[in-house]
Amino acid sequence: MEARKPQEMDMKGKQTCINGVDIEQLRQNISNIEKDPSLAHCQFRATNRWQGGGHSQTVIHDFHGAGQEITHRHDFRMDADEPPLLLGEDIGANPVEYVLTALSACLTTSLIYLAAAQGITLREVESDLEGDLDIRGFLGLSEEVRNGYEHIRVNFRIKADAPQEKIEELIRLAVQRSPVFDVVSNPIPVSVKGEKVVETAH
Amino acid sequence: MEARKPQEMDMKGKQTCINGVDIEQLRQNISNIEKDPSLAHCQFRATNRWQGGGHSQTVIHDFHGAGQEITHRHDFRMDADEPPLLLGEDIGANPVEYVLTALSACLTTSLIYLAAAQGITLREVESDLEGDLDIRGFLGLSEEVRNGYEHIRVNFRIKADAPQEKIEELIRLAVQRSPVFDVVSNPIPVSVKGEKVVETAH
Repeated sequence: MEARKPQEMDMKGKQTCINGVDIEQLRQNISNIEKDPSLAHCQFRATNRWQGGGHSQTVIHDFHGAGQEITHRHDFRMDADEPPLLLGEDIGANPVEYVLTALSACLTTSLIYLAAAQGITLREVESDLEGDLDIRGFLGLSEEVRNGYEHIRVNFRIKADAPQEKIEELIRLAVQRSPVFDVVSNPIPVSVKGEKVVETAH
Repeated sequence: MEARKPQEMDMKGKQTCINGVDIEQLRQNISNIEKDPSLAHCQFRATNRWQGGGHSQTVIHDFHGAGQEITHRHDFRMDADEPPLLLGEDIGANPVEYVLTALSACLTTSLIYLAAAQGITLREVESDLEGDLDIRGFLGLSEEVRNGYEHIRVNFRIKADAPQEKIEELIRLAVQRSPVFDVVSNPIPVSVKGEKVVETAH
């Protein structure tokens, strides 16, 4: 990965980039959405294909945003599997580990962008996550336990030229704004349907 | 990836592996948990480190399960970023795309394992997911939109030697049992805390 300058100046010496986030572009995006709120609508997409046993691969190719169909610079291919204890071959992280990945990345990105918008430069942001899960739910062995995480804990460690109170305020704001925090901590409607594909003779 | 035999027989000609899932081991795990329910408790873990701008990397190294501390065969390193439209460099899928990855992989694995437990052989399982998201929530531009997905739709296409009704029943059961479906469609308690790391002089 190429090194990024956390801060850049424009020709007039005005700071245009904080924490690697182009704040002029951020302000422009916000201004465009204020003029036309339909630009805020995004649709994200994924295709998953089973590979055998506990292993499946998800491909992310394109999305809709700012009124346009946009193709990612590369396809993102993500393997999920289970560890041998859960009858897989450990080819990738398992689905509930992907949840921790989504949550940690989203809280971090939210924190970085919000700090940039406030002109706060951060130097290091790390977080540890743990989630407790009782697999009796998935196995259908108990009606008393839920299928998903019982509790997730996130712990941030941040290096910045800002006082502890400011760091705590940024974390609170990241939690308030993070899309994946909302997905995990509040109910999202999910519709699932499916069909059997009838194979034609070759 | 090495090819996997979807079905294997033991020495007595009894089927021990369906859809790549070792059903004898699955039964053994269930029997162990019935005897000692504490074996069902798992703790999954992740560490995320900011890389600059919208880019962060999550590392999955170990977990707790069946009363043991278990290290994965490899560390799983997952890059998340935002596309240029959202001020990133498209180094990886974005956090809400990771949510679709987690959900699709979990529904697929649940379906495969449940089919194996019922002795149903599947040949192909594919799913397409889409999620609608209004970024005014994240940007703090509207109190009327939520931060996360407004709705997620999942569509399965399955090839199997089983009637359409059986396929539909398997999909319903996968939805009922899937840990990530629970995480997305019901509230999970999440605790977030953080601290400023004070740097000592070198």
